[in-house]
Amino acid sequence: MAKANPNYSLLQGNYLFAEIARRVKEFSEADAGAAAELIRLGIGDVTRPLAPAVIKAMHAAVDEMGQTASFHGYGPDYGYDFLVNAIREHDYAARGVDLAYDEVFVSDGSKCDVANFQELFSDDCVVAVTDPVYPVYVDTNAMAGRAGRPGEAGMWDRLVYLPCHEGNGFAPSLPAVPVDIIYLCYPNNPTGTTLTREQLKVWVDYARDCGAVILYDAAYRAYVTREGIPRSIYEVEGADEVAVEFCSFSKTAGFTGTRCAYAVVPHKAAVTGAQGERLALNALWKRRQSTKFNGVGYPVQRGAAAVYTPEGRAQTAQTVAYYMENARIIREGLRAQGLAVFGGVDAPYIWLKTPQGMDSWAFFDLLLREARIVGTPGVGFGPSGEGYFRLTAFNTRENTLKATERFARIR
Amino acid sequence: MAKANPNYSLLQGNYLFAEIARRVKEFSEADAGAAAELIRLGIGDVTRPLAPAVIKAMHAAVDEMGQTASFHGYGPDYGYDFLVNAIREHDYAARGVDLAYDEVFVSDGSKCDVANFQELFSDDCVVAVTDPVYPVYVDTNAMAGRAGRPGEAGMWDRLVYLPCHEGNGFAPSLPAVPVDIIYLCYPNNPTGTTLTREQLKVWVDYARDCGAVILYDAAYRAYVTREGIPRSIYEVEGADEVAVEFCSFSKTAGFTGTRCAYAVVPHKAAVTGAQGERLALNALWKRRQSTKFNGVGYPVQRGAAAVYTPEGRAQTAQTVAYYMENARIIREGLRAQGLAVFGGVDAPYIWLKTPQGMDSWAFFDLLLREARIVGTPGVGFGPSGEGYFRLTAFNTRENTLKATERFARIR
Repeated sequence: MAKANPNYSLLQGNYLFAEIARRVKEFSEADAGAAAELIRLGIGDVTRPLAPAVIKAMHAAVDEMGQTASFHGYGPDYGYDFLVNAIREHDYAARGVDLAYDEVFVSDGSKCDVANFQELFSDDCVVAVTDPVYPVYVDTNAMAGRAGRPGEAGMWDRLVYLPCHEGNGFAPSLPAVPVDIIYLCYPNNPTGTTLTREQLKVWVDYARDCGAVILYDAAYRAYVTREGIPRSIYEVEGADEVAVEFCSFSKTAGFTGTRCAYAVVPHKAAVTGAQGERLALNALWKRRQSTKFNGVGYPVQRGAAAVYTPEGRAQTAQTVAYYMENARIIREGLRAQGLAVFGGVDAPYIWLKTPQGMDSWAFFDLLLREARIVGTPGVGFGPSGEGYFRLTAFNTRENTLKATERFARIR
Repeated sequence: MAKANPNYSLLQGNYLFAEIARRVKEFSEADAGAAAELIRLGIGDVTRPLAPAVIKAMHAAVDEMGQTASFHGYGPDYGYDFLVNAIREHDYAARGVDLAYDEVFVSDGSKCDVANFQELFSDDCVVAVTDPVYPVYVDTNAMAGRAGRPGEAGMWDRLVYLPCHEGNGFAPSLPAVPVDIIYLCYPNNPTGTTLTREQLKVWVDYARDCGAVILYDAAYRAYVTREGIPRSIYEVEGADEVAVEFCSFSKTAGFTGTRCAYAVVPHKAAVTGAQGERLALNALWKRRQSTKFNGVGYPVQRGAAAVYTPEGRAQTAQTVAYYMENARIIREGLRAQGLAVFGGVDAPYIWLKTPQGMDSWAFFDLLLREARIVGTPGVGFGPSGEGYFRLTAFNTRENTLKATERFARIR
C-alpha cells in the first residue's frame, strides 16, 4: 500500500488558526447571543475595503478578460512586467535598492512562498527560527523532515530556537550552534516588535560569515513608522548575498481575500550543490515556480499594480494609518489598565503579557468567555510565547474601542 | 554553507514550455516579419474571452471588495460554500457521484495541486507515469527524490513508465512491477486520447487490489463528447477508495489567466502510516493546504461559481464547442494531407506522427521556420513521445484554418 510522508504524523493535530476557529465555533454554537457580540482580534485579517484605485483597475482588467482582443491567458510565470516594474521602482529603487527584473517573483501569497521556499534546501540543513514564530516556518520544515522530532513544549529537536522575550527586548541572539537557514520576520509576527538597521546588520554579517541563508518575511513592512527601522533587509549592505525577502499585498493593501504577493531572490544569494558548486537560489526558485506554479490571475495583478499609482499609494497609506490608530488605542488602552504590552508601533500586532501569569490558552478561553474577544494565544507561536497573547489592529475603530474597554471585564 | 536540495541538480535545465519560449524568442528576434505571422498551437492556452456570466459575477464581487460591509478577507481554506456546493451539484451529483462538502478543495490551479499532492507520500513510494506524460508529474517527483536518477532518453531510473503509442491505441498496460502512485490524465494531455469506462475500471481494480493511489488529472473533462468516456474517475465503482481527482476551470471556462481549480480527495482514499496505520489522504491534504496555502481570491471564486449558472453553462459550452470545431479542422485537415493524427475527438489536443520519422525537436524547428507554427515536440513529454508532435485547438478559427493550410509547406 502507498505510504504516507512519515513527517506528517509528527505534526500537531491542528494548525493554530484552525484550532482557534474550532474553539470559536464551539463557543458560538453554544451561545448565539454571545456569538453575535464577538470581536475578532485573532487572525491577522484585514477588514477595510480595497482601495478605490485597486477596484477601478480590477474592473478594467475584468472587462479586458471579457473581450477576445484584450483577453489574457497564462501570464508570465513570474509576474507581468507592469507589476514587477512597479515593485522594483516603488518598493526598492525609491529606497536605494536596485533589483534586476528577474529577481522579483509575483505569487498568490507570502504564506505560500515562505512555505515553499524551503524545498530548495537539502533536508539536512539546520534551521533557526525565532521563538515565538509564525507557525508556517516550523510546520513546513517539519513536513520536509528538517525539524526532527517534536519534544517537550512542542519544540522540535533539530530546530534551533532563538528566544525573544521581554528580557532581550524581543531581539534574538545569534545562534549558539551553526545553522544554515534563518527565518526572520520584521516587523515581527507575532510580537509586533522590530529590529533596527544595526540589529539586522548583525544577522546579515553572521550569514555572510558562515554561509547561512536568511529568509526574511517583510509582510508587515507597510506599518513601519519610525526612522531607522528597515522596511527591507536589502537596506543592509551585503544582504543581497545572503537573503531572500517575502512581501505581500495582504497587509499593505488589504489583499488577504484577493491574493497577491512577491518574493525577492537576488542573483547573488547562493547555496552549495552536491559537488560543492555554487548554485544561485534565483535559478532554483525559477525552476521551482515554473514547475509547480502557474502565476497570478491577470485582474489581481492589475489590482496590485494600482497600489503603486499616486491614488493607490495615498489610499492604502490612509488604511494603514487607520489600523495604526487602532494599534495605538489598544496599546495605550491596555497599558492604562495596567497590562504589559509590546509592539504596535511599527506593526499591526500588539503582544501582551497575560495577567497573573495565566497560560495563553486559558487566557484565550477567558477572554472569549468574559469579553467575547478572539485573540491568539502566544504559546501557539512557540514555547517562549507562553504567557503572552497577540491582538491585531485590523478590526474597525468601533470594535477596537469596544474591545479595549471590554478588557476591563477580565481584571 | 547552506546546501541545495540535491535533486534539483538532476533536473533538465529547462522546463519544456520554457525551452519552447526560448526557441520562439530567438526565432522572433532574428526575423520580426516572420514573427508577426506566428501561429501558436504549442502551449495549451485558451484564447476565447471569459463568459459574460463570469465577467458579470467578477464585477459584482470586485464591487463587494470595495465596500466595508461586503468586503472579504481570508476566505475558508478550502473554498467558499457557494463554489464548493456548485461543484458538488453540477460536476458530481448530476452524474450520480455524491461528494461530501469537505472532499472538495478549491485552489488556484491544477498544476499546483498535482505538483503539490506528491508531498503527502513517503519518498520511497514507487511512481508510475504514462509515457508520454505531462512533465509536471515527473519533475515534481524528481524534485522530491522519488524519481531516482535520470538516465538515457531522459528516463528516471526509479519511475515506472507506461508507454502509450499507436501500437496499444495509447492505452497504457498495467505496470509489470508493483507501484504505489499512478498518474493518469484523461482526456489525455498530450495525446488527446481517452480511456473508456471499462479501460479505466481496470486501473481502479488494480489500485484497489494492490493499495496504490491513482492521481487522476481530469483537467480536460469538458471536452468529452462521446458516450462511455468518463468525465470523472468516480464514475467507476470503488474509485473513491483509491483515487484523487484534479479538475480545473482553465480549460473548461478559459481561466488560464484567472486561476481557479479544485481537487477531490475522498474520505475513503488512504495511505499507510509509519506504524502501519491507515491515514486518510483527505486529512493529510487538509493539513498540507491549511499550512502552505491561503485560498483563492473572492472575486475569482465568484467568477468560477458563475460557470455553473444556466447562462454560464451555456456560454462555456459554446466556447468548448468552438475549440472542438478547431480540433476537427486540424484533425481532418492534416489527415487529408496524409499525416497520421490521433486525439482531438474528446480533447483539445491533436497528436500527430512527424512525417518521415523526423525527430520531434527537428520537426518543431522545421514547423517554426517553414510554416511559422509553434507546436510542442512530443519527446518533451517523454521518450515514447519521440516522433510525435502536439497541436492544440485553442487558437482562433481563422488561425486554425490558416495553420492547417500552412502544414502543406512542410510536405
